[in-house]
Amino acid sequence: MIMEAKKEPEIITDKDQMRKWSRAMRCDGKSIALVPTMGYLHQGHSSLVKEAHKHADLTVVSINVNPGQFSPSEDLSTYPCDFNGDILKLMSVPGGVDAVFHPYNLYDYKNNSRSSKDDDDVIPMIDGSKASEGKGAVSCVEEKDLGHETWVRVERLEKGLCGNSRPLFFRGVATVVTKLFNIVEPDVAVFGKKDYQQWRIIQSMVRDLDFSIRIIASEIVRDNDGLAVSSRNVHLSVEERKKALSISRALSKAKLSAKEGQKSSKQLKELVIQSIEKAGGKVDYAEVRQQ
Amino acid sequence: MIMEAKKEPEIITDKDQMRKWSRAMRCDGKSIALVPTMGYLHQGHSSLVKEAHKHADLTVVSINVNPGQFSPSEDLSTYPCDFNGDILKLMSVPGGVDAVFHPYNLYDYKNNSRSSKDDDDVIPMIDGSKASEGKGAVSCVEEKDLGHETWVRVERLEKGLCGNSRPLFFRGVATVVTKLFNIVEPDVAVFGKKDYQQWRIIQSMVRDLDFSIRIIASEIVRDNDGLAVSSRNVHLSVEERKKALSISRALSKAKLSAKEGQKSSKQLKELVIQSIEKAGGKVDYAEVRQQ
Repeated sequence: MIMEAKKEPEIITDKDQMRKWSRAMRCDGKSIALVPTMGYLHQGHSSLVKEAHKHADLTVVSINVNPGQFSPSEDLSTYPCDFNGDILKLMSVPGGVDAVFHPYNLYDYKNNSRSSKDDDDVIPMIDGSKASEGKGAVSCVEEKDLGHETWVRVERLEKGLCGNSRPLFFRGVATVVTKLFNIVEPDVAVFGKKDYQQWRIIQSMVRDLDFSIRIIASEIVRDNDGLAVSSRNVHLSVEERKKALSISRALSKAKLSAKEGQKSSKQLKELVIQSIEKAGGKVDYAEVRQQ
Repeated sequence: MIMEAKKEPEIITDKDQMRKWSRAMRCDGKSIALVPTMGYLHQGHSSLVKEAHKHADLTVVSINVNPGQFSPSEDLSTYPCDFNGDILKLMSVPGGVDAVFHPYNLYDYKNNSRSSKDDDDVIPMIDGSKASEGKGAVSCVEEKDLGHETWVRVERLEKGLCGNSRPLFFRGVATVVTKLFNIVEPDVAVFGKKDYQQWRIIQSMVRDLDFSIRIIASEIVRDNDGLAVSSRNVHLSVEERKKALSISRALSKAKLSAKEGQKSSKQLKELVIQSIEKAGGKVDYAEVRQQ
């Protein structure tokens, strides 16, 4: 039996190095797909990589837990990570990936070779006051006062749905994706439909800011029991996992009810909420939207 | 006498065409400088072009009055323009420019060849409500409801100084510069120090969003009488122009006073305000800032 050697990805931690890699590949006529992740990879990510293979010659996976999308009260410090395991997982995807971009801190401009030489010029014109002072909700980037102050806002789509309980979450997502786009300079980027609002926000952002990047959406991957796979699932106890299954069951029920003629979105929402609450879940929101 | 033939710039109106031009040049090993303008060019712009020549092989000037930085109550409709005159002016700069990017409307995604094919996918997930509804100050982009909803905010530097009386101005500037950067993909971009806060905002934005673009600042150009050259000066009557001269005079006075030992920024501000008001001017703000 002949085993095919698994491709080992190039691991790149420096922004300039990453850009240099992409530009060299582009000069060779290769197209590049980016799959942005926060690591702790699972089958959902593998499916994004497989999707990426269909659309470009080379695949880059970024692994970077983004402090810009966590508020100080959220779970940045306990977000799961396993970098070596991630690399093995990427190598086990047929075709593998060509490069992994794993920056130490995307918001630390002092330790980046490109910007350090310009640092003397960047004396704050408005001095003293910290961005985090006198504000309620800020992200972990502002809490650490790294000097970062530019944020990309997709002003309509970032409101509502997940934006209600996490008002600065999508600001952080749109901003870090912009940074990754500017560093990796891909032709294509792949996002999962599990994070549906995020995907639509990135779509609008790419159009509005004239990025020359095609956004590909990839279908939700579920475990055998129906639960959508997610890095955070590792935190669930057996009991909690059981409760969580009520989400996909409730959505399937509502889908069936709509198919059978239920036209009231209020009734459909009620069906979802009651179904989840009966299983012991607490519903943040349930909404019916035009796709 | 032998006259050197003046270089005629390539005029590009389409986003994709512009990007294609830049990428072809880059593949030929050429570096590109961008000089973003709103047209009605004067010696200030010529000096930006001359500065650009020092830093890159090729120079692109964009001419585009940006509705995103005008509020509906501002002077978008009367902003001066003279495209043919602008081209002649650019041709008269020694060395000329290589391309002029003159898009019809940077925010009209329906009429852009690149995005039109994706339009079916971009059904608004949040339906109905117009961005301009229920809001006080919006830009002319939102007033026209073009669907554009992504804005780049440089959250600390956009506040104060000119940001006080024009709260959404720098949002519009940062956003259109991002768009131009993504379309032209330059190596270098040149901004005038006349718009000092704008220059510093672009500097922060480039660092924070990881654009691989070097920002060059160019010195203020003044007419013989001391007035900083500006496209809007064309609107000044003889009387108003005389009043306007009090600005540079007042600043020179304050500079001298500081040199002579005046250390109170309050006193320096007062000196500027009184000096301009005495000449019949109305001061929006005068502030002393760390550079």
